[in-house]
Amino acid sequence: MLAVRKLKNEPGLWLERNAPVPQIGPREVLVAVTHAGICGTDRHIYEWDAWSKSRVKLGITTGHEFVGRVHAIGSAVTRTAVGQRVSAEGHIGCGVCQPCRTGNGHICEKVDILGIDTDGCFAEFVAVPEENIWPVHPDIPDHIAAIFDPLGNAMHTVMAAGVSGRSVLITGVGIIGLMAVTIARAAGAGKILVTDVSPRRLELAKKLGADVAFDSKDDTWPATARELTHDQGPEVLLEMSGHPKAIRQGFSALRNGGTAALLGLPSEPVPLDLPNDIIFKGATVLGINGRKMFETWYQVENFLLSGGLNLEPIVTHHLPLTDFERGLKLMQSGEAIKVVLEVPKP
Amino acid sequence: MLAVRKLKNEPGLWLERNAPVPQIGPREVLVAVTHAGICGTDRHIYEWDAWSKSRVKLGITTGHEFVGRVHAIGSAVTRTAVGQRVSAEGHIGCGVCQPCRTGNGHICEKVDILGIDTDGCFAEFVAVPEENIWPVHPDIPDHIAAIFDPLGNAMHTVMAAGVSGRSVLITGVGIIGLMAVTIARAAGAGKILVTDVSPRRLELAKKLGADVAFDSKDDTWPATARELTHDQGPEVLLEMSGHPKAIRQGFSALRNGGTAALLGLPSEPVPLDLPNDIIFKGATVLGINGRKMFETWYQVENFLLSGGLNLEPIVTHHLPLTDFERGLKLMQSGEAIKVVLEVPKP
Amino acid sequence: MLAVRKLKNEPGLWLERNAPVPQIGPREVLVAVTHAGICGTDRHIYEWDAWSKSRVKLGITTGHEFVGRVHAIGSAVTRTAVGQRVSAEGHIGCGVCQPCRTGNGHICEKVDILGIDTDGCFAEFVAVPEENIWPVHPDIPDHIAAIFDPLGNAMHTVMAAGVSGRSVLITGVGIIGLMAVTIARAAGAGKILVTDVSPRRLELAKKLGADVAFDSKDDTWPATARELTHDQGPEVLLEMSGHPKAIRQGFSALRNGGTAALLGLPSEPVPLDLPNDIIFKGATVLGINGRKMFETWYQVENFLLSGGLNLEPIVTHHLPLTDFERGLKLMQSGEAIKVVLEVPKP
Amino acid sequence: MLAVRKLKNEPGLWLERNAPVPQIGPREVLVAVTHAGICGTDRHIYEWDAWSKSRVKLGITTGHEFVGRVHAIGSAVTRTAVGQRVSAEGHIGCGVCQPCRTGNGHICEKVDILGIDTDGCFAEFVAVPEENIWPVHPDIPDHIAAIFDPLGNAMHTVMAAGVSGRSVLITGVGIIGLMAVTIARAAGAGKILVTDVSPRRLELAKKLGADVAFDSKDDTWPATARELTHDQGPEVLLEMSGHPKAIRQGFSALRNGGTAALLGLPSEPVPLDLPNDIIFKGATVLGINGRKMFETWYQVENFLLSGGLNLEPIVTHHLPLTDFERGLKLMQSGEAIKVVLEVPKP
Repeated sequence: MLAVRKLKNEPGLWLERNAPVPQIGPREVLVAVTHAGICGTDRHIYEWDAWSKSRVKLGITTGHEFVGRVHAIGSAVTRTAVGQRVSAEGHIGCGVCQPCRTGNGHICEKVDILGIDTDGCFAEFVAVPEENIWPVHPDIPDHIAAIFDPLGNAMHTVMAAGVSGRSVLITGVGIIGLMAVTIARAAGAGKILVTDVSPRRLELAKKLGADVAFDSKDDTWPATARELTHDQGPEVLLEMSGHPKAIRQGFSALRNGGTAALLGLPSEPVPLDLPNDIIFKGATVLGINGRKMFETWYQVENFLLSGGLNLEPIVTHHLPLTDFERGLKLMQSGEAIKVVLEVPKP
Repeated sequence: MLAVRKLKNEPGLWLERNAPVPQIGPREVLVAVTHAGICGTDRHIYEWDAWSKSRVKLGITTGHEFVGRVHAIGSAVTRTAVGQRVSAEGHIGCGVCQPCRTGNGHICEKVDILGIDTDGCFAEFVAVPEENIWPVHPDIPDHIAAIFDPLGNAMHTVMAAGVSGRSVLITGVGIIGLMAVTIARAAGAGKILVTDVSPRRLELAKKLGADVAFDSKDDTWPATARELTHDQGPEVLLEMSGHPKAIRQGFSALRNGGTAALLGLPSEPVPLDLPNDIIFKGATVLGINGRKMFETWYQVENFLLSGGLNLEPIVTHHLPLTDFERGLKLMQSGEAIKVVLEVPKP
Repeated sequence: MLAVRKLKNEPGLWLERNAPVPQIGPREVLVAVTHAGICGTDRHIYEWDAWSKSRVKLGITTGHEFVGRVHAIGSAVTRTAVGQRVSAEGHIGCGVCQPCRTGNGHICEKVDILGIDTDGCFAEFVAVPEENIWPVHPDIPDHIAAIFDPLGNAMHTVMAAGVSGRSVLITGVGIIGLMAVTIARAAGAGKILVTDVSPRRLELAKKLGADVAFDSKDDTWPATARELTHDQGPEVLLEMSGHPKAIRQGFSALRNGGTAALLGLPSEPVPLDLPNDIIFKGATVLGINGRKMFETWYQVENFLLSGGLNLEPIVTHHLPLTDFERGLKLMQSGEAIKVVLEVPKP
Repeated sequence: MLAVRKLKNEPGLWLERNAPVPQIGPREVLVAVTHAGICGTDRHIYEWDAWSKSRVKLGITTGHEFVGRVHAIGSAVTRTAVGQRVSAEGHIGCGVCQPCRTGNGHICEKVDILGIDTDGCFAEFVAVPEENIWPVHPDIPDHIAAIFDPLGNAMHTVMAAGVSGRSVLITGVGIIGLMAVTIARAAGAGKILVTDVSPRRLELAKKLGADVAFDSKDDTWPATARELTHDQGPEVLLEMSGHPKAIRQGFSALRNGGTAALLGLPSEPVPLDLPNDIIFKGATVLGINGRKMFETWYQVENFLLSGGLNLEPIVTHHLPLTDFERGLKLMQSGEAIKVVLEVPKP
């Protein structure tokens, strides 16, 4: 089969045309992938950054956002049928630890991640445990079902923070930040403020429902953000940039008693002024990882079906799987927001 | 001054033209009322039902929903200024009990209610403790500021239940139920289902954002409600009818693990099938009383300022204070939803 | 093998000496039972009450509280090993519905219950899905591991209500109510008040940590309970009697803003004064069903290992499995609280 | 009157023997102080550290922990009577902002703190707003009532984190950390682990209920802490040291999905590894400031009255007010934990 793989210890990803179809165990499902989203993580693996080198095994098939059809099922699979249209949660928990057994498999300490620790979905077929399978509602189109994974990240962040009737600041409107804008709007947020370095992304954030967009290079924005929110600051911070400065500025703007949900991953330690930013504020800070299995998935489905989300402007490019490298370069140039790859029909 | 009072132990309310202006204590504020809403409670007092007879003192000035201007302040008042446009919370807590001292004055056991236990706002002037004063934002028009009280009831119910991304059933769309529809929509609810006996109110509920409206006389609605919500039932029940049958049907429709917020007041004990309606369901049931002081008021202000609420179709009539009886009769006939009285300028 | 079964449509349970050992599917585990607790539900099935007749299939092996050793595992079982000492959650969820997929399998609509819907543990062997298996910590003795199920009911109720630093009223101190007393004490409850009709159980409740014990036949107890809790009533009600009158009295005693957790199952509709008992109080009412899978199990283990629970006085009798009928009769007479059956070693 | 004041811009505190008795406004209460606790903050002011210099006005009377008798009341005071034994919340909120009006006055942005921003309680008399007065239950002795303020800090931290049935790590067992040990034990904590540099304080922590005490200078303790908590780390971190290293170690030990409550105040920015310490862990971090007004005060009273707290070993010294400097020096030497000053009777 076709498969996009990390074959060498250097920047790049390589298309194999005769990769073996994955074998499935008794509790696994083989999915014929039809559409797959390119994630920032895939780009990191392509660029072969420090994190990728330390984590990713050579030889792995990349990709973890997808939709497809069930092609075969293991002998002990009972809840999934051949032919079903499905996506899947990419966090594969150990199944026996406390988080896994209490509905928190997303924070299992031994979690494997599809396309990082096990062969992923940039291929004609992918094998996943039945427990991870998510049947996709027929009213949801393929290119949206293909990006449930990042949409779930955004949903988890927004819903954990709780935005209904509260003013919201989103620092960083990359793919997930933009998704968070439309989700927060649909979830009943009050005023939505966003920051970013990219004028294009700021413009798009406004189109998706942000009330005010700040250039994050202008250091006066926290003061303005405060003024615009009853002189007290936004009640919710959704941190999606991973930039130390944005994180500190976001905390400084946050209202006393506010909630900060952290999703962006800084690549170095961030010096925080704990007394002023968290302690005296009586702030609540939430670390957000992956998606709640499967509470977040139900939320994504509910919001999609009730028609409240506007995702079309976010999926900017559709390319065949074989053009994955063009997709990665479009992301690097900033021309693309989200690229969805289509697997050629056999 | 003009004042609408309960003067006799019989149905009716009477206009006094030379009522004394209330005296204020050192911590009280005298407000010159400009607009006041007629509540269902005022109608009960007018009709002199069993509850009114048992609770309301003869001689009292009725009314508790209003907006006006501060006319005078007591000697120890420091946080309110003459001339301010204000509304007020009508629950006057004792100030010393645990609920009062923990932000829960709305459930103080010794609470006095304006227009029921103390002279109310259907008058040119009303005296309220400074602690109860709510400064009204300049962008909020008078006829909306006049009905913050019932809007707060609806807000408290919706926000306590938590509707963001969840399917919602509202049993009973009288004034507060209708307000709950537009609030739930703005607060990010998924599918909204409503029931009522009045085709006109059902129609209005749809205009305000309900997806499906059921005639509550048709006993098949709980089954249909269930079908429309993934065959599991709505995740949230907002009970605003006070009718025993609607309450039981609402519980029967509620999803396992769902939340029911009860606001409507049945006039008799309601036999509940506790195992099937609450216990096996793992349901959460919330009793809703008044408004949280003042969390609910901030929520009302936030939602009004962000433009998400559609209240104009609910305020159907504007009348001078002296026409209060016509307002009450319009409510009795079902012609009026919410009537706002205007106090003539001196 | 030995098995205690419901063989006839009449009161009674029958010991079969040559029942077939259960077959296990690929995802199931066969446990050699060593100890099993007799539950009130087993007694209902023995007495063949209305509920049992409507629910229980003739031929079923009864019993759902147990501990044992893994004897064999299905072909797709990976997380359980032969020889492990295990107990098991008796609620077998469908695995595909929203509750099952969000850590709430205990309220799955299609749940099967061990010993009611499928063959249970009053036998030498019992088959359970691997997902339901709970490995028992070596420091926990067999007769306690055998009663994790009811202990979990009590734990779920106490922890859902939240007793730390709050005054607690427990209406009904049968087996689970008594367990709730020792759990509430260990979980940091303030004053603990209990009610029951049985002087013996009231005495035992005091031994386990209750501060005050009321005879529930004396109608003045709610007033006294109120007096003893700052004249405001207990902050938490744990309803474990299932008696309509106790339920109503419990609600009447509950403090404004309090929490009521309902576990007891009334056999008929209970007329509730919703305005005074729930709505004006701003009360929170929680329906409690089974155990949270597996959050509750971890809580049980934690409290057992930290040594805070006193369960010995509750397990009053140890009998061989073949004496199950004597155990049931001891429960009927009130002589036994909890009876643990021991399966004879082969 | 006698008053301990900060008179000069240099280390030291000075006793004035003829300080004027504070004047009270219409809403204020004059309390004749009988007992007052010395806080670490008083020591900072005595030592005149960088923070003190930047915040404290010369001339102020210090001290904010006390109990006494109401000596006089303002003209508009209605809920407090002369002769009452009272303590008081030392955070004086503005009364008009959102936190103040929603039961969160402890995080008011304009808060004044007794003994820092306004004249405090190291004096024969102190004036406080009626709203801040806390009537002390007769069963609570004076030397305990005098330290409600730090006890409230500890209570707020423990209860915000939620310790019932969970393993708890307390980094730093100074006065408040020690109080947290006995509170966590009474509130139903599972295993309690503590760290500190002082062998004496570690010993005392064990006496108060800690299971394991670690020397924080030994860098292997986080690994051991993890081992002792099912190899997953403690579920709750109560950070009470304010030391950057302890904070980082505490986070590294915290379990996935755990809760960290931060009370200790580092004097410099703390570089945090946000991905590993908070984000991937799905941790919840709570900033803790002051006491919830007055929820925390009720909790303190409840736990004191139910007899679960052991505070006697913490109050190590009782001295007359005029010996305040000896008290401060005993704290500096580490000989004293908590010093309570007694005001000489007139």
